[in-house]
Amino acid sequence: MFGKVVVFGVGLIGGSFALALKAAGEAAEIVGFGRRIGSLTQALELGIVDRAGFNVGQEVSNADLVLIATPVGKTAEIMARIAPCLGRRTLVTDAGSTKGNVIAAARVHFAARLGQFVPAHPIAGAENSGALAARADLYRHKQIVLTPLPENRPEDIARVRSAWACCGGLVRELTAAEHDRIFAAVSHLPHLLSFALVHELTRRDNRELLFGFAASGFRDFTRIAASHPEMWRDICLANRTALLDELDHYRSELDELREALQRGDGTSLQATFDIARNARREWAAGQANE
Amino acid sequence: MFGKVVVFGVGLIGGSFALALKAAGEAAEIVGFGRRIGSLTQALELGIVDRAGFNVGQEVSNADLVLIATPVGKTAEIMARIAPCLGRRTLVTDAGSTKGNVIAAARVHFAARLGQFVPAHPIAGAENSGALAARADLYRHKQIVLTPLPENRPEDIARVRSAWACCGGLVRELTAAEHDRIFAAVSHLPHLLSFALVHELTRRDNRELLFGFAASGFRDFTRIAASHPEMWRDICLANRTALLDELDHYRSELDELREALQRGDGTSLQATFDIARNARREWAAGQANE
Repeated sequence: MFGKVVVFGVGLIGGSFALALKAAGEAAEIVGFGRRIGSLTQALELGIVDRAGFNVGQEVSNADLVLIATPVGKTAEIMARIAPCLGRRTLVTDAGSTKGNVIAAARVHFAARLGQFVPAHPIAGAENSGALAARADLYRHKQIVLTPLPENRPEDIARVRSAWACCGGLVRELTAAEHDRIFAAVSHLPHLLSFALVHELTRRDNRELLFGFAASGFRDFTRIAASHPEMWRDICLANRTALLDELDHYRSELDELREALQRGDGTSLQATFDIARNARREWAAGQANE
Repeated sequence: MFGKVVVFGVGLIGGSFALALKAAGEAAEIVGFGRRIGSLTQALELGIVDRAGFNVGQEVSNADLVLIATPVGKTAEIMARIAPCLGRRTLVTDAGSTKGNVIAAARVHFAARLGQFVPAHPIAGAENSGALAARADLYRHKQIVLTPLPENRPEDIARVRSAWACCGGLVRELTAAEHDRIFAAVSHLPHLLSFALVHELTRRDNRELLFGFAASGFRDFTRIAASHPEMWRDICLANRTALLDELDHYRSELDELREALQRGDGTSLQATFDIARNARREWAAGQANE
């Protein structure tokens, strides 16, 4: 059970966290901060937050828990604002899709109080964003990755873990480096590849003809190319090293496939497709069982 | 209206064609040929075909229309079997995902009777295959591409067009070369890229960890990596030239993105993502209106 919980960013991610904690009866009071007065008003009207915050120092100094759920590019700025006024018992967590850069910023801004920050990444999202899209069950059965720091006390990690678990999430721990490599491979790279395909087609003189014949395979492959450009720019830059590494692995794979195709090597192509299909099916079967 | 219609391959594609023609009251009798007795029995039981064919010469010589709906790799073999016994009025169409290679085979096998063959590619498919998956409405509102030959008589093109239109399809015409270039870009390349991503991940020592954190973006991007390996091997080989060309375009695009990422050029990345998102959204809006 938490007393006051302060949420920076009352959109899909922060709003759903607030709704889930309230639904679980785990937060006495939720205060929301937002960049736009419209979002804050909406969050109040929807009962996502109990109050809109205006004075950061006042709200944060006696908060039990602070969630930073702004776009990754704004995280450092929020850290700089809350660091001087953190209460001694106040814990901070975040929801950023990349962890190395968030922790680097935390080291700078929280300094001696770094131990009060327990980094997190909820693996949940949706096509829509904003307070209207927030739902109490967004995190239900979703994985929540914590990347605790050597400076965190075990009891503080446990407390932040409990907050995410109360939202219905399945909490797991990784190091920040593991996290960033894993998500470069299974999330950031696919987004980059999908954006690349659609962008490349828009450069053609016959683009209207091409899009006119695109069907269900294209639809699935490019669904993530409709993702938020600013958010994905920030993620790519924040996780640049791991993403470059994944991109190079992938380009080697494409080079091999290109060679097989060039020499008409159907056996190699089919073997590659077979392995991929089996792995994809096994993965999907595992997802269905969860 | 057609008298006898002969379908080679009574699975999803051929079975749905048969069901649609019957539902429209456009075929007096449908005879099915298949490689496996089990599929044929199933097609009979499901009322997809009226009779199972055994004697190719007898069935084809007085047929009005023949559909070749076997895997692309078997098309030439079927052509060789039916060519000697085609009736003078018999028209042939197919459902192959690539057209250049099908037409090359048709030139060899149909020779002087090439004009009786009007190549087609219905842009419809589904996760499932086989007679059980066949449905009378599979082609409803789906694009059907005809790639007529100089040897086709206009009235024969019109007659094959009417068969596909009776199935509910939106029939369009392209040259075979246009067709193969377009589908290399919007279908064959995305399949290759999706297979490549999953295959590359299966090579890692930490593959279980990677797949364990894969979420909705991965799911969408890799859905087509669960496609049929043999079918996709055949498509890739059949459309090799155009696919290699598309792959090279795509690799240049990736090279540009890699350079932008390497130099931390957020403006370029965001511009690329923006253009892609807008194009993807515009395309999806157009699809929804159809």
